[in-house]
Amino acid sequence: MAITVFGRSVSAFNLILFYVLKELGLSYEFVQTTPEEVNSPDYLATKHPFGRTPSLNDDGFQIYETRAIARYLINKYQGTKSSTVLIPSDVQKAALVEQFISVETSYYTQPLYKMLTQLILVKKQGNEPDLKIVNETREEIVKTLDVYEKLLEGKDYLTGEFSLADLLHVPLTFYAINSTDEGDLWNKRPNVSRWLKNLNERECWKNVFTEYKLSEYIQYNISILKKNS
Amino acid sequence: MAITVFGRSVSAFNLILFYVLKELGLSYEFVQTTPEEVNSPDYLATKHPFGRTPSLNDDGFQIYETRAIARYLINKYQGTKSSTVLIPSDVQKAALVEQFISVETSYYTQPLYKMLTQLILVKKQGNEPDLKIVNETREEIVKTLDVYEKLLEGKDYLTGEFSLADLLHVPLTFYAINSTDEGDLWNKRPNVSRWLKNLNERECWKNVFTEYKLSEYIQYNISILKKNS
Repeated sequence: MAITVFGRSVSAFNLILFYVLKELGLSYEFVQTTPEEVNSPDYLATKHPFGRTPSLNDDGFQIYETRAIARYLINKYQGTKSSTVLIPSDVQKAALVEQFISVETSYYTQPLYKMLTQLILVKKQGNEPDLKIVNETREEIVKTLDVYEKLLEGKDYLTGEFSLADLLHVPLTFYAINSTDEGDLWNKRPNVSRWLKNLNERECWKNVFTEYKLSEYIQYNISILKKNS
Repeated sequence: MAITVFGRSVSAFNLILFYVLKELGLSYEFVQTTPEEVNSPDYLATKHPFGRTPSLNDDGFQIYETRAIARYLINKYQGTKSSTVLIPSDVQKAALVEQFISVETSYYTQPLYKMLTQLILVKKQGNEPDLKIVNETREEIVKTLDVYEKLLEGKDYLTGEFSLADLLHVPLTFYAINSTDEGDLWNKRPNVSRWLKNLNERECWKNVFTEYKLSEYIQYNISILKKNS
């Protein structure tokens, strides 16, 4: 077994993959790619035709798109190196995990990624964020978090038990809370913040956090954002 | 076994679900919901907390979000009532289906849905479409279809064999080609149009088409759009 991940270590989607690999107890090699490389003909032909990261190679089998890679690793390796269950084998329980992955993709990550592109990426490049986009996406996130607040009532995780659906929220939410002034969207909702506390306390996320020096990266982000504001 | 689908029969996502049910050879009851109903406290509490359609009930088990419902039906029923394979049992083959479902969700359906909201929904309501959104999303779709054109070279379907990944593209693409002037985006790409031809000729899609009177619905759409232009 030889797993290689190609990507950018600070990207939220790469962090998801590292987190999944650690929860499954899998070791891997990581190859850092530059923004130029991901648009090179070789990368587009062999790693990811849309020029994104991460892409993963498992003993010659190449696959791209974070959630698809995660499902593949779970299907192949879950239960072999750790006891963590990211997708249960029970058909109804698995269906609810998939339901919340779809919720995460469409109602959470989609608007949040767009908001953070403006509030972090655009600002880091020294440009003004598009406030129309920021406000529209914030409105979507508020609606989503209001639903989450209800769904998480009396529950530790979205389906009740920790799963891939919860895990997928962690890296992007970490950036949102620690690199922008929008943290109250999460912090002021008791069930949502309890859920995030449960997630942040997981050993595997702490290991990702330390190994990829996220504390330093956040400080770096904040210093650039302050300089540009 | 008693499957009930709650939704709007002309919605692209409901059509996906009907198509999946037919490919799996499953019978179902369909309950038409009104736009008011999907925002009622009862619907939000029991069918879909984000007020969307479809939602499905299978002998008391309630689940929402189209792709999650499709995976659930496949996990539970595939091979029992028909021989169609929408997600293969082989781990690597299944991974490639999931990879293309992720591509469909993020690079295809997301911009296409936004474009069609402007070109169909907004125009049907008698308003002017936002041309900035139309142009930006068209640009994304062009990039995606250029990649598809390469990926489909020498292949009948995205992974080589028909799967859930292909099926998910059909209803929204049908509306795009038949209710707007954007059809050449698909028709002028030989591999993409051959792929669509393969998909459109499938018996189960033809049955969805007839049963839900899509030909009449398209005529109705076009007449409203003409009146408003």
